[in-house]
Amino acid sequence: MIILGVDPGSRFCGYGLLEIESGKIIGAGCDVLKINQKHGFSGRLVDVHQQLKGVIDEYKPELAVVESIFYGKNIKSAFTLGHIRGVILLVLAQSAIPTYEYSPREVKKAVTGNGNATKNQVRYMMQQILKLKSLPSSEDASDALAVAFCHYNKTRFAKNLCSPI
Amino acid sequence: MIILGVDPGSRFCGYGLLEIESGKIIGAGCDVLKINQKHGFSGRLVDVHQQLKGVIDEYKPELAVVESIFYGKNIKSAFTLGHIRGVILLVLAQSAIPTYEYSPREVKKAVTGNGNATKNQVRYMMQQILKLKSLPSSEDASDALAVAFCHYNKTRFAKNLCSPI
Repeated sequence: MIILGVDPGSRFCGYGLLEIESGKIIGAGCDVLKINQKHGFSGRLVDVHQQLKGVIDEYKPELAVVESIFYGKNIKSAFTLGHIRGVILLVLAQSAIPTYEYSPREVKKAVTGNGNATKNQVRYMMQQILKLKSLPSSEDASDALAVAFCHYNKTRFAKNLCSPI
Repeated sequence: MIILGVDPGSRFCGYGLLEIESGKIIGAGCDVLKINQKHGFSGRLVDVHQQLKGVIDEYKPELAVVESIFYGKNIKSAFTLGHIRGVILLVLAQSAIPTYEYSPREVKKAVTGNGNATKNQVRYMMQQILKLKSLPSSEDASDALAVAFCHYNKTRFAKNLCSPI
């Protein structure tokens, strides 16, 4: 079974893939979607839709996990991110992939034991936990892997602990 | 030429159509997208995508206008609306329709002369201005018509007053 994690971003969207067999992680990978930075905002939404569809078609994940967005500090950027996240949820629903969500705090806690960990700590811990040969290529990519890992970790002993969105 | 106006809403999305010939409005109509209220949030995003695509395919608008969202009061609902608006901008971009945006205040001012007008006043004025036989079917539908009218009104004497998103 493959779990797809997605980290919504208005410039870079990370995605991470965890391959699970008999309850154990047997493979992992992550990257960022190729969004053309020269495109206007609407054009980037089209890129996100197209690129994420490509990842789904290639890896055929059984379920997906998307980070919910913390909107306490910068309302405007959270609002912009909402647009991207809407497109991500759309692609997943169009592909009939059950989707789960966790807050950034839950994800950080699951990966580092600390809900206030930095992105860099998450990146480091992802390499350690998954025994990757090198650090994930970017913080966006490792965040996406972390959100997939968070779901794996929360449900490994209780398969239906939470319901999809 | 047909101008499509869209009013993003998490339960009801209005759309309005203005037909323009030689700079004059010769036809108008509006309604709400058929979103299945029994669907979960992701399912409603799929509905919005599918239904709006249907409207575009049927009426082939040359340009579209979407209300920007006022996010001063309720951050959480504005954030949710961001998801819907993201999907709307996506469909319009996928259909290569140049899209413009105006704030609710600008729209209300263009229609009623008062930036703080109620939705009901907008609905009443839309009927008056466009000489409709009856009131628009709902406030969401008339808001969508109003945003299309706002763009028509602002650009009727200066065709390229503003640039698309």
